[in-house]
Amino acid sequence: MILRPALLATLLATAPALAADPPPYRSAQQILDASPVADWRSPDPDSTLYLELEGGRVVIELAPGFAPAHVDNIRTLAREGFWDGTSIYRVQDNFVVQFGDADADDAAKARPLGAARRKLPAEFERDAKGLDFQVLPDVDGWAPQVGFADGFAAGRDPQAGKAWMAHCYGVVGAGRNNEPDSSIGAELYVVTGQSPRQRDRNIPQVGRVIQGMELLAALPRGPEPMGFYEDPAQRTAIRAVRLASTVPEAERSQLQLLRTDSATFREVVEARRNRRDDFYKRPAGHIDLCNVPLPVRTAKR
Amino acid sequence: MILRPALLATLLATAPALAADPPPYRSAQQILDASPVADWRSPDPDSTLYLELEGGRVVIELAPGFAPAHVDNIRTLAREGFWDGTSIYRVQDNFVVQFGDADADDAAKARPLGAARRKLPAEFERDAKGLDFQVLPDVDGWAPQVGFADGFAAGRDPQAGKAWMAHCYGVVGAGRNNEPDSSIGAELYVVTGQSPRQRDRNIPQVGRVIQGMELLAALPRGPEPMGFYEDPAQRTAIRAVRLASTVPEAERSQLQLLRTDSATFREVVEARRNRRDDFYKRPAGHIDLCNVPLPVRTAKR
Repeated sequence: MILRPALLATLLATAPALAADPPPYRSAQQILDASPVADWRSPDPDSTLYLELEGGRVVIELAPGFAPAHVDNIRTLAREGFWDGTSIYRVQDNFVVQFGDADADDAAKARPLGAARRKLPAEFERDAKGLDFQVLPDVDGWAPQVGFADGFAAGRDPQAGKAWMAHCYGVVGAGRNNEPDSSIGAELYVVTGQSPRQRDRNIPQVGRVIQGMELLAALPRGPEPMGFYEDPAQRTAIRAVRLASTVPEAERSQLQLLRTDSATFREVVEARRNRRDDFYKRPAGHIDLCNVPLPVRTAKR
Repeated sequence: MILRPALLATLLATAPALAADPPPYRSAQQILDASPVADWRSPDPDSTLYLELEGGRVVIELAPGFAPAHVDNIRTLAREGFWDGTSIYRVQDNFVVQFGDADADDAAKARPLGAARRKLPAEFERDAKGLDFQVLPDVDGWAPQVGFADGFAAGRDPQAGKAWMAHCYGVVGAGRNNEPDSSIGAELYVVTGQSPRQRDRNIPQVGRVIQGMELLAALPRGPEPMGFYEDPAQRTAIRAVRLASTVPEAERSQLQLLRTDSATFREVVEARRNRRDDFYKRPAGHIDLCNVPLPVRTAKR
């Protein structure tokens, strides 16, 4: 191809200008404000759990793609009202809030489990095959690869062919005893501190809080070791835990989640990896998996 | 050296037995319970700050090794009672709690700064030379090297010859405006969520909370953007902020900190890198800097 002098002159004049003027930095919020509707999704009402407290509603998106048997059991327990009148009985600083039946270990007092299964497989990880995994380019010490799948922060081991959810702030896990398959999804915990990633691949993770974290994270810490409340009067009462699909449409929380496989999400991640606003003097050029925001917004009705 | 047959036989018999029986796993708590007194240190009362709230005392160890000018100013402000009667005016979920003079930006209402300096250098990092730095063997995405220095979690860039404190849970930073040298140590924040390491090398860090985090982390989140409380009645009152050295001996908190240059600390880190208790089925073989516990205990009087 032969360039005509006039065209060459134009190219030469344009190129340095382009190099000198990168696109202006947009904050994550600015990117979100300009995002197309198609980059957002509504959580499935049959995979959305409402934890109703005196102070308000905590909304949890369940992760059937990672812990299908646990999520099935949780749906059964919610439909049967298992958690209605139970409590948050453990609040440990910089770790977790835990709720369910405080008397679960006492056969004489434990709530009936109804149609829920008493034994589930230890869903610590899943086959990586068939999972649309959006890789984060940054190094991670806990996993060979990290990224996002089904809208959740996740780890992946390409050699072992396994993937799993990562214990980030707001993630919901299924409490268990020492036996790996001792969780049934009735006792749940929510991460409220520095991400305890050492738990990855050691315990089933069943979802994440998408609204109302401040109702859990600000609870007074329990006085007993590991944040337990032995005194029932000090526990936080749970009015009900319901599946969104069983709640009348008008009473549902109208939330939308940013798709992690969208261009908007990729731009948000990059805006956070390299902050070029007036405050930051040294962009990190990096982000840790659990520092990546997973944006949630209220849908316009 | 020539081995006698009998000795050789003994060695051969012993070696496999040693290899088959690694020392039994000890949890971090078991290691601490058995630790020698010499592995603990008492914080310098002139570098210890008491934040006195209605609910109790928050104890902060200052970091003169990382931010000497800020720590000097903080000492001056504490001696002059600058913070007495001020408030915690910002509580942002999964980020920070901030305290000081809520009217600092209003010249008509701002508290007098007394003998404190109005302008300080931007102490974002320090010369790595002369700093005893205990390297953590694990990869970190935010810094070329991470580890511990003066008892604080820290990053280091051997090529640049710089070191800095890391924004972990409980770390205390000096709020600033957009100008890098706009902090004077009067407005302080404490990290209460997932470690915001993107702030490393971008803002002076002046210490860390060594006792009482639950008094800050459990505060109700502020209703305004970024967790601010515009309504003064909703803020948390600060009775006083005092240097331990100005408090009568009998009223001081008797705390001891595990030395990060001790054998006990190295064992605790290893016990956390590879958990081999009955609960964990897959030891991580890794730990993130901000997941490493920095043990504190009450001294026997």
